[in-house]
Amino acid sequence: MNRPERTAIYPGSFDPVTLGHEDIARRGLHLADRVVVAVAARATQVKRPLFSVEERVDMLERVFRDDEDVLVRSFDGLLVDFARSVGARLVLRGLRAVTDFEYELQMAQMNRELYPQLETVFLTPHPEYAFLSASLVREVSALGGDVSTFVSPTVLDRLRDRHG
Amino acid sequence: MNRPERTAIYPGSFDPVTLGHEDIARRGLHLADRVVVAVAARATQVKRPLFSVEERVDMLERVFRDDEDVLVRSFDGLLVDFARSVGARLVLRGLRAVTDFEYELQMAQMNRELYPQLETVFLTPHPEYAFLSASLVREVSALGGDVSTFVSPTVLDRLRDRHG
Amino acid sequence: MNRPERTAIYPGSFDPVTLGHEDIARRGLHLADRVVVAVAARATQVKRPLFSVEERVDMLERVFRDDEDVLVRSFDGLLVDFARSVGARLVLRGLRAVTDFEYELQMAQMNRELYPQLETVFLTPHPEYAFLSASLVREVSALGGDVSTFVSPTVLDRLRDRHG
Amino acid sequence: MNRPERTAIYPGSFDPVTLGHEDIARRGLHLADRVVVAVAARATQVKRPLFSVEERVDMLERVFRDDEDVLVRSFDGLLVDFARSVGARLVLRGLRAVTDFEYELQMAQMNRELYPQLETVFLTPHPEYAFLSASLVREVSALGGDVSTFVSPTVLDRLRDRHG
Amino acid sequence: MNRPERTAIYPGSFDPVTLGHEDIARRGLHLADRVVVAVAARATQVKRPLFSVEERVDMLERVFRDDEDVLVRSFDGLLVDFARSVGARLVLRGLRAVTDFEYELQMAQMNRELYPQLETVFLTPHPEYAFLSASLVREVSALGGDVSTFVSPTVLDRLRDRHG
Amino acid sequence: MNRPERTAIYPGSFDPVTLGHEDIARRGLHLADRVVVAVAARATQVKRPLFSVEERVDMLERVFRDDEDVLVRSFDGLLVDFARSVGARLVLRGLRAVTDFEYELQMAQMNRELYPQLETVFLTPHPEYAFLSASLVREVSALGGDVSTFVSPTVLDRLRDRHG
Repeated sequence: MNRPERTAIYPGSFDPVTLGHEDIARRGLHLADRVVVAVAARATQVKRPLFSVEERVDMLERVFRDDEDVLVRSFDGLLVDFARSVGARLVLRGLRAVTDFEYELQMAQMNRELYPQLETVFLTPHPEYAFLSASLVREVSALGGDVSTFVSPTVLDRLRDRHG
Repeated sequence: MNRPERTAIYPGSFDPVTLGHEDIARRGLHLADRVVVAVAARATQVKRPLFSVEERVDMLERVFRDDEDVLVRSFDGLLVDFARSVGARLVLRGLRAVTDFEYELQMAQMNRELYPQLETVFLTPHPEYAFLSASLVREVSALGGDVSTFVSPTVLDRLRDRHG
Repeated sequence: MNRPERTAIYPGSFDPVTLGHEDIARRGLHLADRVVVAVAARATQVKRPLFSVEERVDMLERVFRDDEDVLVRSFDGLLVDFARSVGARLVLRGLRAVTDFEYELQMAQMNRELYPQLETVFLTPHPEYAFLSASLVREVSALGGDVSTFVSPTVLDRLRDRHG
Repeated sequence: MNRPERTAIYPGSFDPVTLGHEDIARRGLHLADRVVVAVAARATQVKRPLFSVEERVDMLERVFRDDEDVLVRSFDGLLVDFARSVGARLVLRGLRAVTDFEYELQMAQMNRELYPQLETVFLTPHPEYAFLSASLVREVSALGGDVSTFVSPTVLDRLRDRHG
Repeated sequence: MNRPERTAIYPGSFDPVTLGHEDIARRGLHLADRVVVAVAARATQVKRPLFSVEERVDMLERVFRDDEDVLVRSFDGLLVDFARSVGARLVLRGLRAVTDFEYELQMAQMNRELYPQLETVFLTPHPEYAFLSASLVREVSALGGDVSTFVSPTVLDRLRDRHG
Repeated sequence: MNRPERTAIYPGSFDPVTLGHEDIARRGLHLADRVVVAVAARATQVKRPLFSVEERVDMLERVFRDDEDVLVRSFDGLLVDFARSVGARLVLRGLRAVTDFEYELQMAQMNRELYPQLETVFLTPHPEYAFLSASLVREVSALGGDVSTFVSPTVLDRLRDRHG
């Protein structure tokens, strides 16, 4: 049988990538043949990103260097345009909380309006990552807390460089 | 029978007015004889509005120019003071999501404390507008997306002017 | 000016009517000229009602005997059919909690599908009644607790008769 | 390239199947090569099902008779055992509301404990089906309401047979 | 210093006690000198309990036999009366989910009305137990699933006896 | 009997302290022998505080001057480090709404990771304070509204000084 390859995009700010993000991206391979981690260059949610787009892409590439079906890209316009450009019909999102859910539902419906063939699918985090968020990681790290159980070693190094 | 006229205010930022807002304002006439769309001049939720108060009022007036019982005003102080000034005892709000609900409930209770005769009533959006928000419209439009199914033509023109 | 009268229905099980229900029904007169409290005879949510429909109607009539614009009726079929039969275009509901909100939203959308001219409007409870529910009242009363601050004296008498 | 086929199961009571269920099952083909609609024989959520398992399976088979990659099966034990028996590593669920979300999240985590390779993925309903539920359809139909816009003609016939 | 002892009650159905319940009861000792696990004899939430009150008390006593400050009792009336009878001014509850939260909040406010000196305090579950509920345990066990990671060995034995 | 003293911290921005905050702090003495109100100097949630840390501490000290077991401190780093420094094993939080709940749950789990002996406990507000928030108080006061029923007289004076 000759089925078309399925590509999923996993969009986000990844400022920085957490172990929760890594988990979702890898599990995305259960439903797609290729997962493109899509770093939003024009982050509208995160007012002042801690890391530049280039730094965030670099950390992601190191984190996924042994996952050959996980690619990393940045994008600067509409998510639906980026999806079209890489031939993706699936958008992957992690759902932690009810408040996540409502924002994600709005985004999914909006993106469906803009590109009806694009399907947004939600995965649930592993319980040990359910409380993790990049903003909490940034906050704890900035205050000198130990975040070594929340991020990969390569990200930990960058956080230490940044926060001294 | 000689009943007093009922006036409802429909407050918001309307930056810009969406088809969802239009729907709620018109359906407000099911429970009031007159709906005053009240544009908050000192928007505390929206940090940097895309359109000035004057532009937002102007778009609303064009959108509702054929609805004789829908008026458009701006206000600059407390909502309860504005309500008193136009003789309104009803505040109209659209409820899309659970997170909306909680903020709205807080506001309704606070306003009841400040002006016990003021009743806040909630309407539910038509399902096709349930995912719509002015902030999503601004975001999609800024990135070059097509928002023609979310706003009236007059608003679409303004968004195109703004985002080039 | 000669405006048509507005009739709102306020449907529920009212098993039994609480002070929270009384508050919502009376505040409904802020947006309608007449409120019809509509007792669901075929209660699908409450498996075994504590009081018969006749008893529930009787308690409501006593509670609202001095409110000339609040009427009490029972109904046995679809809410939308009952609304048509009394010439009502407004359905009144109290919103206490997020879980209420979601069920209510589903019902409101379903009723809109069945009768597009029917508008469901939500009022928020007074904070002191926000935790009140008929099922909690039944439960506390059945266990011998004092519910005199949650229901009217006439309802209190009936609960005492029932629970000995 | 020679990839393994992906099978997803879409479990539920389907008492009866609604247009919302049909939509989710078909969209499941965006992420799996085959969707097995799995009818729970021992329905624990629905106390007294309106239709027998055989009737529910029969309605589903008629509804999906032209969708060659959608199969219909019933199952009587643990979902994870059924998933193993059909070689499925994906469970498909539709997410309408916050209250859905929490129950679904619990189930997904429990199933992950029982069968770590099983991934639960959530799809969002088309807005026009967002308020639909099988229990509302049963209730409205039982009271004589028109549900022709909520279910397929074959299901409509069965509901009319049942409710006279 | 001579401070009064603090007693907390931890009420529930415990049908059966899970590792999540055990965790909450033991952590209750961080804020009270004594925790009384209070088994509701007249369970209103669980329609047909799987285990009798005596069986549930017996399992709890075995589970907490090495925790000298955790006592087990059953009660048959109002929670507030039971609290008074054991001299407790604290009610302990675990909060897993938003839907839990709303029901718990209603109960807490109702109990505060009935006994103003009674304080309800909420603890959050350890993430690995966040998805656990007694009803899921009963359901999975009844269908032959392995629940050995969700309950203590003594409870596991009883579940196996019950479900054959 | 010689039990160790229990200290709880009650962290927040308190910009400014409301009657709801006062209520939670005092009720914290039901589960701890000492409550330390901990004013976050580096407020990450409140972008531009209305009052300086010194002013917020000063208002709190005046408000609690007759409560000998309520202390007021500011802190500038991680909450868990502050808790250790004052020997506290309890963190006290008030829970008003579902959206509060989710953020609080994330924080509680994160803090448990960072300091496993630290227990976060949640209290529910008195219904009359359930809608109160410091941000609403600031907003209403800034617009000239009367907030005398939401804050203590000493706070009211400061708000009037600030807003003229």
